[in-house]
Amino acid sequence: MRKILVTGVSGFVSQYLLKYLSSLDGIYEIYGITRNRIDFPEYKNLQIKLFDADLQNSLLLRDIIESVQPDTIIHLASDSSVAYSWQKPIESFQNNTNIFLHLVEAVRLLNVKCRILSIGSSEEYGVVTQDALPLTESSPLNPVSPYAVARVSQEMLSSVYANGYGLDIVMTRSFNHIGSGQREAFVISSFAKQIIELKLGKRASIEVGNVDIVRDFLDVTDVVKAYICLLEKGKKGEVYNVCSGKGYSLKELIEIMMKLAGVNSGYNINAKLIRPSDNPIIIGSNKKIKEECNWQPEIAIEESLSKMLDHWAEKLK
Amino acid sequence: MRKILVTGVSGFVSQYLLKYLSSLDGIYEIYGITRNRIDFPEYKNLQIKLFDADLQNSLLLRDIIESVQPDTIIHLASDSSVAYSWQKPIESFQNNTNIFLHLVEAVRLLNVKCRILSIGSSEEYGVVTQDALPLTESSPLNPVSPYAVARVSQEMLSSVYANGYGLDIVMTRSFNHIGSGQREAFVISSFAKQIIELKLGKRASIEVGNVDIVRDFLDVTDVVKAYICLLEKGKKGEVYNVCSGKGYSLKELIEIMMKLAGVNSGYNINAKLIRPSDNPIIIGSNKKIKEECNWQPEIAIEESLSKMLDHWAEKLK
Repeated sequence: MRKILVTGVSGFVSQYLLKYLSSLDGIYEIYGITRNRIDFPEYKNLQIKLFDADLQNSLLLRDIIESVQPDTIIHLASDSSVAYSWQKPIESFQNNTNIFLHLVEAVRLLNVKCRILSIGSSEEYGVVTQDALPLTESSPLNPVSPYAVARVSQEMLSSVYANGYGLDIVMTRSFNHIGSGQREAFVISSFAKQIIELKLGKRASIEVGNVDIVRDFLDVTDVVKAYICLLEKGKKGEVYNVCSGKGYSLKELIEIMMKLAGVNSGYNINAKLIRPSDNPIIIGSNKKIKEECNWQPEIAIEESLSKMLDHWAEKLK
Repeated sequence: MRKILVTGVSGFVSQYLLKYLSSLDGIYEIYGITRNRIDFPEYKNLQIKLFDADLQNSLLLRDIIESVQPDTIIHLASDSSVAYSWQKPIESFQNNTNIFLHLVEAVRLLNVKCRILSIGSSEEYGVVTQDALPLTESSPLNPVSPYAVARVSQEMLSSVYANGYGLDIVMTRSFNHIGSGQREAFVISSFAKQIIELKLGKRASIEVGNVDIVRDFLDVTDVVKAYICLLEKGKKGEVYNVCSGKGYSLKELIEIMMKLAGVNSGYNINAKLIRPSDNPIIIGSNKKIKEECNWQPEIAIEESLSKMLDHWAEKLK
C-alpha cells in the first residue's frame, strides 16, 4: 500500500478526494492533516489516520511527516478565497505560501522520498486579453489579488524545490471548482443557496457582484481525478492546468440554475461584492494534462449545478 | 521637514543611506527600525530616532508606523544573501516577503499617506540567455533561488498594494552592491578580505565558488542616490532597475583587486561554495531610471574595490 498524506482534509476538495482514494481499494493508506476537525458524516466509514495541526507550526508538521513517511503528499490546505485575501492579505498569504514552504522544507530536511502535488490556481494568470485565450501553461503570470500572488509564490517555490533541491513536485493551476458541499463564500455556491432561498420565498431577489466575469468551471469530482492522474503521470517540476476548457459568465450560470430550480428573478448588484481588481475572463487549455496524463473532464456543468441546488434544497428545507 | 522611516538600519546600505540623508540638511527627519542594534560609530553624530523591532512582529510594526506617521518609507530590511537562502529558505522568505507584507498592510490599515520604496533584486530575473542582455524592466522573471522567489513575491505584493489598494509604492530591482563595510557573506567583500589576508601572509591562496558568473556591480553610494531619486521622481506602481549597465565576471574582479593590492596568486575552487542553481550572467539596463529620474552611476569599479581592500587592510592590520 502507498502511504498518501493529504493536508487540509476538512476542506471541500478533500471530502471528494478522500472518498475517491478510499474507493480505490487497497492502493492507498490514507493520512490526513487538519487544523479544524469537522465530523463529516461521510468520513465515518473511511479508514483515515488524522492529525490535528496548523501547518503554520513548522515543527509539528515536521514531526508528522517524519512519523508518517509518506510516499505521496497532496497539499490541499489553503485559504482559497480571493475575496478573503483582499480583507486579510497577511493571513491569506501565510495560509497559502508559508504553509506550503513549511511542508516542502520538512520533506527536504527529513529527506523523505515522496511525490508532492502542489495545488495552484488559475488566478495566477491575472488579467488577460481575449487573444491570449485559452490560457496555456506557458502563458505569462500576472497576479492581481493577494491570493493570486500567494499562489504564484507557492509555484515559484515549487520550482526551486524541484530544480534546486531535487524534490519530486508536480504543480497544478486549478481553475474554478464547483460541486455540492462547497462553502457559500464561493460564488456559485452562494448563487445556488440564494436561488433556493428565492424558491422557498425566503428572499425576493439575489445579491451579486460583477456577474459579467467569465470563468472556467470544473466539477470537483473531475478535479480529484485529475490530481490522481497527475500523481501517476505528471512530470517532476512541471505545471499543469486543471480545467474544463470552457468558459461561462456568472450571469449564464445564474440563468441555468434558475431554470433548473424553476424560478425567475433578476438580481441586485451589491457594490460591496465587487473586488478591487478582477480578471474579466479566464478560460484554460487542458491540452497538456489530457495528452500527458490521459485525463479528461466527465461531468457536464448542468449536472454539477443541479447537485449544488439539491444540496442547498436539502440543507434549507 | 519630511519624515522618513528606514527599516533595516543596521544593514550595509543603511549605513550609507543614513549618512547621505543626514547630509541633506533640514530636508529629512529620520526614523529607523532595527532588530539588531549595532553601535556604528558613524551614527553617533546623526540625528536618528531608533526603534528596536523585529518586523515579523506585525503589531509592533503597526504601532511604530502609527506613532511616526512617515511621509516616506525606505524598506531596506532583508535577509539578502542568496547563499543563506539555500541554507534557511523559511527564514529567508519570512525576512523578505512576510516582513514586507507586514509593512504595507500596516500602512494600508492605518491609512498613512506615504510613499514606499520596495527594494527588489536582479536575482528575480534568474537564468537568462546572452541575447536577453541587458535586462530591462520588461524582461521575464525566472527566480531560481529561495531568495529570488522571496523578492519576486515581494514585488508582486507591491503591485497588488499599489494597484488594488492604491498605496504609493515604487519598486526597484537592485543589482549587486559593493562598497566598504559590506559583510564577508557577500562574495566581493569575501574576496577582498582573503586578498588582504594573502598579502599579510595569513593564507596561501583564496577560496572561491564559481568565479565565471558575471554580475552587474554598483557602488553602494550610487545605490543610495538612486533610491532618493526614485522617491522623488519614480512612478507609483512601477519597477526600476538600479544597476551600472556593465558586467564583470568574479574572476575579473579578483584580478583587479589582486593588482590593486599588489599580490599574485591563484585560487582554489571549493565545491561547498557552489550553489545548487545559479545564473551564469546578469547585466541590467539602467535606461529607465536614467531617463525618468535623471540618475546615473558616478563611481568607477576600481574605486569601489580599492575602498573595500582598504577597509579590510584597516580591519585586519
